[in-house]
Amino acid sequence: MSSLGKPPMSLDHARAKPHDRLAAALEEDLGAVGTLIRERMQSEAAPRIPAVTAHLIEAGGKRLRPMLVLAAARMMGYPGPYHVHLAAVVEFIHTATLLHDDVVDDSKQRRGRPTANLLWDNMSSVLVGDYLFARAFQLMVEARNLQVLGLLSDAAATIAEGEVLQLVAARDVSTTEATYLRIVRGKTAALFAAACQAGGVIAGAGADQEAALREYGDALGIAFQIVDDLLDIEGTEAIGKNRGDDLREGKLTLPVIRALAGAEAEEQAFWARLIGRGQVEDGDIERARDLMERHGALASTRAEAEMWVARAKAALDRLPEHPVRELLADIADYVVAREV
Amino acid sequence: MSSLGKPPMSLDHARAKPHDRLAAALEEDLGAVGTLIRERMQSEAAPRIPAVTAHLIEAGGKRLRPMLVLAAARMMGYPGPYHVHLAAVVEFIHTATLLHDDVVDDSKQRRGRPTANLLWDNMSSVLVGDYLFARAFQLMVEARNLQVLGLLSDAAATIAEGEVLQLVAARDVSTTEATYLRIVRGKTAALFAAACQAGGVIAGAGADQEAALREYGDALGIAFQIVDDLLDIEGTEAIGKNRGDDLREGKLTLPVIRALAGAEAEEQAFWARLIGRGQVEDGDIERARDLMERHGALASTRAEAEMWVARAKAALDRLPEHPVRELLADIADYVVAREV
Repeated sequence: MSSLGKPPMSLDHARAKPHDRLAAALEEDLGAVGTLIRERMQSEAAPRIPAVTAHLIEAGGKRLRPMLVLAAARMMGYPGPYHVHLAAVVEFIHTATLLHDDVVDDSKQRRGRPTANLLWDNMSSVLVGDYLFARAFQLMVEARNLQVLGLLSDAAATIAEGEVLQLVAARDVSTTEATYLRIVRGKTAALFAAACQAGGVIAGAGADQEAALREYGDALGIAFQIVDDLLDIEGTEAIGKNRGDDLREGKLTLPVIRALAGAEAEEQAFWARLIGRGQVEDGDIERARDLMERHGALASTRAEAEMWVARAKAALDRLPEHPVRELLADIADYVVAREV
Repeated sequence: MSSLGKPPMSLDHARAKPHDRLAAALEEDLGAVGTLIRERMQSEAAPRIPAVTAHLIEAGGKRLRPMLVLAAARMMGYPGPYHVHLAAVVEFIHTATLLHDDVVDDSKQRRGRPTANLLWDNMSSVLVGDYLFARAFQLMVEARNLQVLGLLSDAAATIAEGEVLQLVAARDVSTTEATYLRIVRGKTAALFAAACQAGGVIAGAGADQEAALREYGDALGIAFQIVDDLLDIEGTEAIGKNRGDDLREGKLTLPVIRALAGAEAEEQAFWARLIGRGQVEDGDIERARDLMERHGALASTRAEAEMWVARAKAALDRLPEHPVRELLADIADYVVAREV
């Protein structure tokens, strides 16, 4: 394991975060991605488009997905320039899905700021999302690689499928862990996996290395989403959204599914009211958390995320040694250690 | 002009409609498109996706856009098979935009049936639209033609841009005819133009013929949308949506813009209340129609549509003689003669 022998991560020192170290290693490329994003989010005809886009893109997201494209391409020795395009592509696709998600979830806050659907309206969020999605495909076409076009359009379909599955599974207390995993793979891991693989493909990596990159992205994305779901329950205000939102929206996240699995009759009635019927009473979010704690659901969910981190790092071991590879291993550790 | 010397169109005899004659000429291809659409709208993970899609796709749309791809490809001598893919692509893109439009407009009725957003919910319409859009790109990639990928992703961006422009221009009584034309080119003509051009490109037509196909599609699409806007005012129940919806939604269509141009102070106050502030009172839709009639706005709008039909047919004259070319000329006439 590449992180063995290193001192434990200090979250007090921002510069020490693996995320920041990876960003520093990719600084020049990331600058080019930012320039390209600002250029391509413009619309002469409809100035509302860059306004809505900038609100979200400049809110200080982690840029994790574009960094995965850049890191994979660099690690496989790609000299450029199309990794920059593909990094902008995944950021556009991600931003488009955030815009649509916030409409679907009727969210009020994202990254600590009011959502676009609140500041403008649902219509703007839907249509600007569509625009960014189309812009992503335009950028992909410029990279002139049919394999990359194929895997990124597959990812886009899988994302939408995962979101629909999540919508249909909401408030269904009989949702299984298998369905949860399928939702997570769709809504989150598909883009992580495609980002990593696309970086490899554009660099001309062989099939084995492409597969390893894809597995890394898939496992990292699953771990990331599991932790995201945990942070909805355990997170601090710094997360930039309201704690307990997933519970209020009736989402069957892993800690809920596991707390339900061990629930007695009276607890089952509580979950059926809160999650199944969406009747939220004072103290419910705290009680939900207590029940999860009592049934070991929080600890076992965290262990599940750590298992996926181990899988992500095992996939990296199948790739050639490279300074960026070490950073990607640290990113996997950071995904479960993060507090926002 | 190819339609000279023919008997006037009879709308009583369905078989005589140019639309049906074109469908008959493309029958085998259209069957293959239908099969491909049904195959690709499936989702094992999320059965809601085919349910929502089928509701819209099987409601008996005119299939005009896929027919344009097929007609252009056949006219330019293409033996297949990817014109079928591209025809399915434009139908998927069109269906995705309808799903999102109905959310944006909060529509209750489409093609004479309740809209998907009413039968299911806005969330399903947004996400299934995203899925179909991604499916369209997957199908495009299978055709393995980067020029086609480029022009269809350009069209997708232009469509979204046109929709945002329409959203921003709604209720703005100072909207100009130039802005109206830009909106129409975006929301409707861009896909018509891309459909025609894509059929030519896949057939290996040269740059001149591609340009002629594109101009035909552009002009046809503009004529089509102008007539659509007229039908909102003059149409019968058979149109399958509620008459006056555009007025209630505050859309600045060409007849409104032209009636406004000649409006006296009292009429201006009427338009400002109805369109600008959206305060609809009993008899307003009838009064709006009367004002349009009095200012010659309906007749001049129809003349504008006919001018675009003439342009569409002039573009066809730059293409080689072919039975399908005659049918496309008749389709242009039909677009202004139609009552639904």
